[in-house]
Amino acid sequence: MALLQNAAVPFNRDSFISLEKHEGFGGGWKLRPRRRNLQLVLNSSTNTNVETINGKKVNGVCVERDTNLMNHEFLLGRFAEERFVFRQAYVIRSYEIGPDQTATMETLMNLLQETALNHVAKSGVAGGGFGATREMSLRKLIWVVTRIHAQIDKYSSWGDVVEIDTWVDAAGKNGMRRDWIIRDYKSQKIITRATSTWAIMNRETRRLSKIPDEVRQELQPFYLDRAAIATENMDTQSIHKLSDQIANRIRTGLAPRWSDMDANQHVNNVKYIGWILESMPVNVLEDYKMKNITLEYRRECRQSNVLESLTTIKPITKQEEEDDDDDDAQHLECTSLLRMEGSHADIVRARSLWHSKKQISPSL
Amino acid sequence: MALLQNAAVPFNRDSFISLEKHEGFGGGWKLRPRRRNLQLVLNSSTNTNVETINGKKVNGVCVERDTNLMNHEFLLGRFAEERFVFRQAYVIRSYEIGPDQTATMETLMNLLQETALNHVAKSGVAGGGFGATREMSLRKLIWVVTRIHAQIDKYSSWGDVVEIDTWVDAAGKNGMRRDWIIRDYKSQKIITRATSTWAIMNRETRRLSKIPDEVRQELQPFYLDRAAIATENMDTQSIHKLSDQIANRIRTGLAPRWSDMDANQHVNNVKYIGWILESMPVNVLEDYKMKNITLEYRRECRQSNVLESLTTIKPITKQEEEDDDDDDAQHLECTSLLRMEGSHADIVRARSLWHSKKQISPSL
Repeated sequence: MALLQNAAVPFNRDSFISLEKHEGFGGGWKLRPRRRNLQLVLNSSTNTNVETINGKKVNGVCVERDTNLMNHEFLLGRFAEERFVFRQAYVIRSYEIGPDQTATMETLMNLLQETALNHVAKSGVAGGGFGATREMSLRKLIWVVTRIHAQIDKYSSWGDVVEIDTWVDAAGKNGMRRDWIIRDYKSQKIITRATSTWAIMNRETRRLSKIPDEVRQELQPFYLDRAAIATENMDTQSIHKLSDQIANRIRTGLAPRWSDMDANQHVNNVKYIGWILESMPVNVLEDYKMKNITLEYRRECRQSNVLESLTTIKPITKQEEEDDDDDDAQHLECTSLLRMEGSHADIVRARSLWHSKKQISPSL
Repeated sequence: MALLQNAAVPFNRDSFISLEKHEGFGGGWKLRPRRRNLQLVLNSSTNTNVETINGKKVNGVCVERDTNLMNHEFLLGRFAEERFVFRQAYVIRSYEIGPDQTATMETLMNLLQETALNHVAKSGVAGGGFGATREMSLRKLIWVVTRIHAQIDKYSSWGDVVEIDTWVDAAGKNGMRRDWIIRDYKSQKIITRATSTWAIMNRETRRLSKIPDEVRQELQPFYLDRAAIATENMDTQSIHKLSDQIANRIRTGLAPRWSDMDANQHVNNVKYIGWILESMPVNVLEDYKMKNITLEYRRECRQSNVLESLTTIKPITKQEEEDDDDDDAQHLECTSLLRMEGSHADIVRARSLWHSKKQISPSL
């Protein structure tokens, strides 16, 4: 089945769910074999000031996946839809799975991050830093994530190949939205959807900044009005702050390890998930699987900080979760807080929905 | 340059260093193109009861790397020399590098583990468990690592492709040796060498076991008398036990996180390295790079255990490290111990050599 999607067709975020049905339609496409890949040429009408992608000139050219061949580009990532959608494949490794033999949430988040960074690196606008554009690097600006929401339909196993698509769009006046979908390579089914919002911060003052015009001009050609998660399925509610009185469980004395530091010399966003799980009861971790999670990042964490993790757990009934099709389903909603020990300043707030493992089908 | 090495030629471990010079010699080889790979056919005289590898019949067939193509097998691993040497390529990911922008020691160990497990999985003798053979699984036997020694010449960066070879040999009467070499894919230079010894343990009684004859018969066809590290460069000395009196630094209260548990519901061997680094002074972690490490695994660690990490640091002079070619080199030898809090029972002993980052050439 052709995987190519026409970026010039006006999909908006609400119509994304029906997007897959449109796959493989052919208006205005010509088939032209080149090298070992099939290549489809589109007479694109989109305006762009980006001329080179992956080191070669682009002119509305999309490269389709050849199912018989996984080549260099498959492994290292490539643009799948003009300059808009970046795609990279991964094999789930033995140490990326947890005690229940499936990929951990940290693994998923790591792979999302890797795909996003490679997207920027291959876009032709990358500056020196991780994920920053040239104009951002000139101004000592960096991206900071403010919110991530992920919905997981199926967790992969060791040796499974997943294919991740990512793209960006504007979010308000001074933010950027980045979306991802993860497909199981074999079935080509979407197994995870995620969306995130990002703000710009001054690397030295650590204060948030407006997006300078020069940066906006770099970003705009890449913006794509498409959403991985339809508006009606989005978690847009803010997460209430958890207090000692409400929390079911508190885990204190969480200290970042040297090995938690990333290339930016900070605790990586992904590591917070491990700490949030530290305040979950073991029987929840063993008997339930995280179905979705929303993370609100509120403050940076440095290596010298010591943290506390708090969680409260609420069983939820079928009425509260409308799209549930399992009568016996016993689900849990967890609200978590990662805060500084002492000052109790918020680091991350999280809300997660957990389904009993018995209810999750072993295969899609 | 041809990468093929003739497994039938009698290399012993002492001659391994000169092995690369023999690459591409051609006695008794016929070139036969097949599919997209070049394939070389060898009239092998080795006896084997293993008939299928990678799902197809083997008869002394070696597949050579086609430098223009990285395909499915490249990504998922394949046998590079008959059934003896398994080879797999990896791209170093953004979250696998540390604050100094290069792959962490944990990353290297994770990739070695992954290659070893895929070697067994693709060998045709795999049982149900991680790395166990069929006859082992029938008897509830698992592999446990007793010692690992690694020598690192160059740490890779984000986006670098590395290619890992692994093979096994007998080690005494009841052990197995597993070796690895890591090549930088671009330069094809060997950047890391590692060797390890393994024993067999009963999964239920947690006692070490002799290798049953049926298991030995499964393993023997894969044994290859070749060593990644020449005998004269090996670290064969035992590691003395560190006491509170000798230790320069002690870090207490190290508790495994849920996310440290692996698919076997144990703390993964690789995680110990992070804890060992926890007792290293930050300036050593920042200004020095681990040049080699030896780990002696002495006891299992469960999730409920709380550990202490101890380290002592000794500056070493040029005389003590003979092969050093840098007059100003300031090196450190660290002896570390990971032990149970309370009982002080040993978990892991480690010895590591650290070179100042100033002395390490940025590229090979």
